[in-house]
Amino acid sequence: MNIVNHQFRLAQRPVGMCQRSNWNYTEEALRQPGDGEVLVKTLYLSLDPAMRGWMNEGKSYVPPVQIGEVMRAGGVGRVLASRHPAFIEGDHVYGALGIQEYATLAGKTLTKVDAHAAALPVYLGTLGMPGMTAYFGLLDIGAPKAGETVVVSGAAGAVGTVVGQIAKIKGCRAIGIAGGKEKCDYIVRELGFDAAIDYKSDDLKKALRQHCPQGVDVYFDNVGGEILDTVLTQLARHARIVICGAISQYNTTSGVRGPSNYMSLLVNRAKMQGMVVFDYADRYADAMREMAGWMAAGKLKSREDIVSGIETFPETLLKLFKGENTGKLVLKVAED
Amino acid sequence: MNIVNHQFRLAQRPVGMCQRSNWNYTEEALRQPGDGEVLVKTLYLSLDPAMRGWMNEGKSYVPPVQIGEVMRAGGVGRVLASRHPAFIEGDHVYGALGIQEYATLAGKTLTKVDAHAAALPVYLGTLGMPGMTAYFGLLDIGAPKAGETVVVSGAAGAVGTVVGQIAKIKGCRAIGIAGGKEKCDYIVRELGFDAAIDYKSDDLKKALRQHCPQGVDVYFDNVGGEILDTVLTQLARHARIVICGAISQYNTTSGVRGPSNYMSLLVNRAKMQGMVVFDYADRYADAMREMAGWMAAGKLKSREDIVSGIETFPETLLKLFKGENTGKLVLKVAED
Repeated sequence: MNIVNHQFRLAQRPVGMCQRSNWNYTEEALRQPGDGEVLVKTLYLSLDPAMRGWMNEGKSYVPPVQIGEVMRAGGVGRVLASRHPAFIEGDHVYGALGIQEYATLAGKTLTKVDAHAAALPVYLGTLGMPGMTAYFGLLDIGAPKAGETVVVSGAAGAVGTVVGQIAKIKGCRAIGIAGGKEKCDYIVRELGFDAAIDYKSDDLKKALRQHCPQGVDVYFDNVGGEILDTVLTQLARHARIVICGAISQYNTTSGVRGPSNYMSLLVNRAKMQGMVVFDYADRYADAMREMAGWMAAGKLKSREDIVSGIETFPETLLKLFKGENTGKLVLKVAED
Repeated sequence: MNIVNHQFRLAQRPVGMCQRSNWNYTEEALRQPGDGEVLVKTLYLSLDPAMRGWMNEGKSYVPPVQIGEVMRAGGVGRVLASRHPAFIEGDHVYGALGIQEYATLAGKTLTKVDAHAAALPVYLGTLGMPGMTAYFGLLDIGAPKAGETVVVSGAAGAVGTVVGQIAKIKGCRAIGIAGGKEKCDYIVRELGFDAAIDYKSDDLKKALRQHCPQGVDVYFDNVGGEILDTVLTQLARHARIVICGAISQYNTTSGVRGPSNYMSLLVNRAKMQGMVVFDYADRYADAMREMAGWMAAGKLKSREDIVSGIETFPETLLKLFKGENTGKLVLKVAED
């Protein structure tokens, strides 16, 4: 085979917003799989806010991507060649493919996915890491009880859409915070949230008072910054805040904004707890089964925002930080 | 009786540090107890950081002290006259006496204390609210396991001294953060903390790395501000932060400093939880019994910093915010 593999490799660490010059678009010859390895053709790649963190130096919950390394990314693809007994040519798999057209990986790092049970991009969203994050973050950390009020920010995003819908399934009131009328309409009309707050045009504190007259029992935070600080002023007693992300702060050059209203945790005997989805890996299968059931029953809707062309990666990634995506942002690399 | 009752009443709400002009020193005739009431002569009053919060307007975990009202304070005193069946003249009682020489209160709000079992000021410290705060905050919220590392700020104060000693009793390493050599020496040499960090002269981050090489499992925060933010950078995985107070921020005029490193909660799957001691009222008696046992066994030492003279109240209170007290700050109002 004389196939060339195109890749985005980290060229330099960004200061502030990431941009095309942070990457090198490189090419190299395909590497054939060695013993235990599998060669995968990339079909869809997951673009996630967490990627911005992986570009930074320094300790986090995963090591940073090194300069010169292919950018880390989850993706689904098709097996072209396998030297691992669990996979054969034509299988669809999920794995850490990276931003590249082909990946040669240890078979043990891959998971088979069923292209008939759900469309492939769904395995990057509702049935993938964002869905797992929503499921375990809300149910294990937020632990909402029927009748309680759940507020989620980034509500029209890959995690937020699932958080609100699971909240409804569990008998809670679901209030979403999102940017713009279109997203707000979407989560209320299509996904069944009880209300949406447009942080770009509404007075957030006033709107929270209106939609959460008994206070906020669970706040699932994807954004940090001013929105987290404002929600802190509206907590119900014994509230739980799930710290899942802080997308508003990922590109800051002026220092992360800490939640100055954190003493509301004391006044309201509340807690704020961080979560990393990987800790729940041994329960993914059960969660996926339950969520697939909800999808089949029409209780859980999945939406993907699919952009085609690996070469658009640097600009497509920015849609996340500009708040331009609705649902799971996916980069389509090739036809199946 | 022609006895005059002297009182400190709130004259105006402070901006920044509280000062004498925020108070009126008033006098009025003693009010004799009505049906169900008790007349108490104040002996010792508890001075607490929380008082600064009660002087502010606005909702908190207790209503603010109103302008013109006697300043709220817990205290121990002696019953002069009783029209409540549970008390007789000469009884020693704990109650919300206020900053005044005599208090006429509903008997049901008072609790008898035994002047033979412990010195009266101890009922304002280790066997009083600060001790209860340390006990329930550490054991219920912090939930330390033997072998873990417990860090407490305000370590030489009424709450901090007890937190560190209970941590030792439970088989943990106890590291105290305090201001100045004298306090640091005291908590290590007298109270048996494993180490002390002088935030005024040490590099806090470096010292935490040295004394907590496996990271901080439980952080009991009494101070907030920069110290909280620095401890956040040194958390162990699954760390628990108990938010008990934020004395460094109570007199700020430039806005509370939020913990900008709060995303460490995510990286370390940690939680930060607020507590208010009043929630544990139905368990005070059990806790006091256990703590009195530790005191009798020499495992728990109590220290009070006693200043005499009700007229010194405004300046004595400031000792807390200047970090001048070691142990429980008590205002002595009269001889027993």
